[in-house]
Amino acid sequence: MPATHPPDPRQEEAPDLIVRGGIVLTMAEGRAPIREGTVRIRQGRILSVDDRAEADPGVEILDARDAVVLPGLVNTHGHTAMTLFRGYADDLPLDEWLFNRIFPAEARFLDPETVYWGTLLGCLEMIASGTTCVADGYFFQDAGLEAVERAGLRALIAQGVIDFPAPGVPRPEDNLAVGRAFMERWHGFSERITPGLFCHSPSTCSESTMRDASAVSREFGSPLQTHLSETGGEVEEIVKRTGERPVLYLDRIGVLTPDLIAAHAVHVEAEEISLLAERRVRIAHVPESNMKLASGTAPIHKFLKAGIRVGLGTDGCASNNNLDLIQEMDTAAKLSKVFDKDPTHVSAEAALRMATSGGAAVMGLEREIGTLEAGKRADLIVIDLDRPHLQPLYNPVSTIVYSATGADVRHTVVDGEVLMRDRRFTGIDPEEIMARVEAIARTIGQG
Amino acid sequence: MPATHPPDPRQEEAPDLIVRGGIVLTMAEGRAPIREGTVRIRQGRILSVDDRAEADPGVEILDARDAVVLPGLVNTHGHTAMTLFRGYADDLPLDEWLFNRIFPAEARFLDPETVYWGTLLGCLEMIASGTTCVADGYFFQDAGLEAVERAGLRALIAQGVIDFPAPGVPRPEDNLAVGRAFMERWHGFSERITPGLFCHSPSTCSESTMRDASAVSREFGSPLQTHLSETGGEVEEIVKRTGERPVLYLDRIGVLTPDLIAAHAVHVEAEEISLLAERRVRIAHVPESNMKLASGTAPIHKFLKAGIRVGLGTDGCASNNNLDLIQEMDTAAKLSKVFDKDPTHVSAEAALRMATSGGAAVMGLEREIGTLEAGKRADLIVIDLDRPHLQPLYNPVSTIVYSATGADVRHTVVDGEVLMRDRRFTGIDPEEIMARVEAIARTIGQG
Repeated sequence: MPATHPPDPRQEEAPDLIVRGGIVLTMAEGRAPIREGTVRIRQGRILSVDDRAEADPGVEILDARDAVVLPGLVNTHGHTAMTLFRGYADDLPLDEWLFNRIFPAEARFLDPETVYWGTLLGCLEMIASGTTCVADGYFFQDAGLEAVERAGLRALIAQGVIDFPAPGVPRPEDNLAVGRAFMERWHGFSERITPGLFCHSPSTCSESTMRDASAVSREFGSPLQTHLSETGGEVEEIVKRTGERPVLYLDRIGVLTPDLIAAHAVHVEAEEISLLAERRVRIAHVPESNMKLASGTAPIHKFLKAGIRVGLGTDGCASNNNLDLIQEMDTAAKLSKVFDKDPTHVSAEAALRMATSGGAAVMGLEREIGTLEAGKRADLIVIDLDRPHLQPLYNPVSTIVYSATGADVRHTVVDGEVLMRDRRFTGIDPEEIMARVEAIARTIGQG
Repeated sequence: MPATHPPDPRQEEAPDLIVRGGIVLTMAEGRAPIREGTVRIRQGRILSVDDRAEADPGVEILDARDAVVLPGLVNTHGHTAMTLFRGYADDLPLDEWLFNRIFPAEARFLDPETVYWGTLLGCLEMIASGTTCVADGYFFQDAGLEAVERAGLRALIAQGVIDFPAPGVPRPEDNLAVGRAFMERWHGFSERITPGLFCHSPSTCSESTMRDASAVSREFGSPLQTHLSETGGEVEEIVKRTGERPVLYLDRIGVLTPDLIAAHAVHVEAEEISLLAERRVRIAHVPESNMKLASGTAPIHKFLKAGIRVGLGTDGCASNNNLDLIQEMDTAAKLSKVFDKDPTHVSAEAALRMATSGGAAVMGLEREIGTLEAGKRADLIVIDLDRPHLQPLYNPVSTIVYSATGADVRHTVVDGEVLMRDRRFTGIDPEEIMARVEAIARTIGQG
């Protein structure tokens, strides 16, 4: 029997969780929406996705009536603990924002405790807005990882690598050793969480740092993350230093591999796009952050046309200032249209793919998540439809991308665990987390 | 006593509604946020805005603790009944979208009944997302006006004028007569609702139609609305026909007056911006629609610098596809930054002004609404802060613009009437309205 068909129900094991009654968008290639679908789950994996309605007595049911069932959304670029700095500094020139506000605040106020609570606040927000998997890069990531583990999300948690004194890594020459120790400590710890490295950027990491980080990542089988060509100034700097544009430079030093997740990729020329496609680099598209910091607009239509894997990301809360991927889909579609002067570019369907199956591919998890298919991990969300701003319904994809927000998510499930049911968090206590962050922010605000 | 001070409380009349406990952003020039403010209201008008906490026994209280109190948002450009076509046609080339999908659907399915229920659905959405006042233009506007009246919103309801056969106006030569009759019927009917005219655009209305519509509007003391320079193609067409760019053409024919509300204003040159400022024309900025249809980006920073009155608008739900002005503020700020390559342009503060006091000025209602001050109409909203995506709080303006959405609105008040309390509609029945629109949409969907 071909793998795209549902398994024979007669052979199916008994589910321990059933999602029932909604329009199921599996996001699997070529599979039409199921008008009244049922997703059966057992031990964290999907058993079946179909329209069989028979009862499964005694099994926990998630009600998806008047709603859409989707794969959980994948945030391919975040600095989750930066919720701590949400609204701390906005509308400033880029250098002033980064060097006079954000970097000093990070240097002064980040420690394992603040990163832990900041990350948990971000996890609350992601669970509430339908994100089930995140690629995160920051400092003090033992704490970040413990927070994500406690929250129940799936994640790639990367330790930041930069050739400057950094939070928790005062001597830059230690950055790779700290990173390697992090990888060793957490490798194999969890099926949900992969440790990784995040090179800040080719302009703030030397050639050897980039190479070594790439080698360590390969050794542990993790993707390497980096910021790439986010601003015009950064590109100029690299061209001046190396004589090459950033993508060509990274290729020459051997870092432009299929395991690289490049965030932003705003300022890339035609030759660079071809090379990114050829080397099978993965792109994290972060439109709202690029808009807010006035960095520019990534040529997403060209990336998709070139067959590049593209996921969506929010970036950190200091430059967005939220972690809502449903709003990010809307912005991604609209920004590409106006930037390219073509309303057909980045359709609602393309945006939704970026946030689901595309994001899974960027994470290297396309066999485990990103679509709702038998055998995959049960990472899924249920989005309400019976609200004034989501009516009437002609096309559920358009409704989700152009009309919904994260606040319309009803249930969030990761690995078959219900992390939010009817908008109530099941595992972590929002009051405690918000109170902790409020106390930290009072200190930060007094600067 | 200067008018900017609160009135002497000893002389104050007894309130009939009190909003208490939140951070009050009055949006009045030079007035700082009130950390724990109280807004006292009597017979639809604001008595006082201050931090006096004494009890007013027996008076209805709206709880604004852990929340922000703001002037109600003003949507300066909508076609509210187009909720009927939300998600009906997306991601298409502009001509195909408009001429093959939207216009035929409007011709076939609009009538007083469908416009009434479509407008009510839009009102539900606006009330739920914090909009208290809308400038609307469409056809069958007796029905549109009755819907807005029933919903309790403040509005400028304009009958569409176009030199083509239009819904309800099959003979274009009747368009002004239909418009004048509409004005006569509703002029003075309500303090909340002003009837008006909406010239579709200088490319679809002749010189004499534009002139006559302007004259009729002036006669009744209403602003005239029009679409202006939304697309490059439309500008070319007008230049070809008249030999002038649209703003200069409108000036020559005498329509470029302080009473004109020009929506979009995307493709305007420096000379046109100066003229718009000089003639004190009002601009409705609709960034999301301009993005989705790939029309371009209006030069808002330049408009504001030139002292032009600018409000925000959503446009209709076929090109957005929602009526959430809180999201629109976010997009307005971010789009100007990336378009101008300057992160300081259109700050959160500027975006919030556009959606409140700026919008009030565009409506010609700056003496009545747009700020929270003693003597003004009690149009206000309360926005929750105690949610993960709105924490921590450094700057309430930034939090509202960059982190909140319409779903965070807790209460909505127009003219001292509570239209939504704790997210429950008090006056209109969402179930009935959604069921009616669903039935209409089934017919439309079957095409």
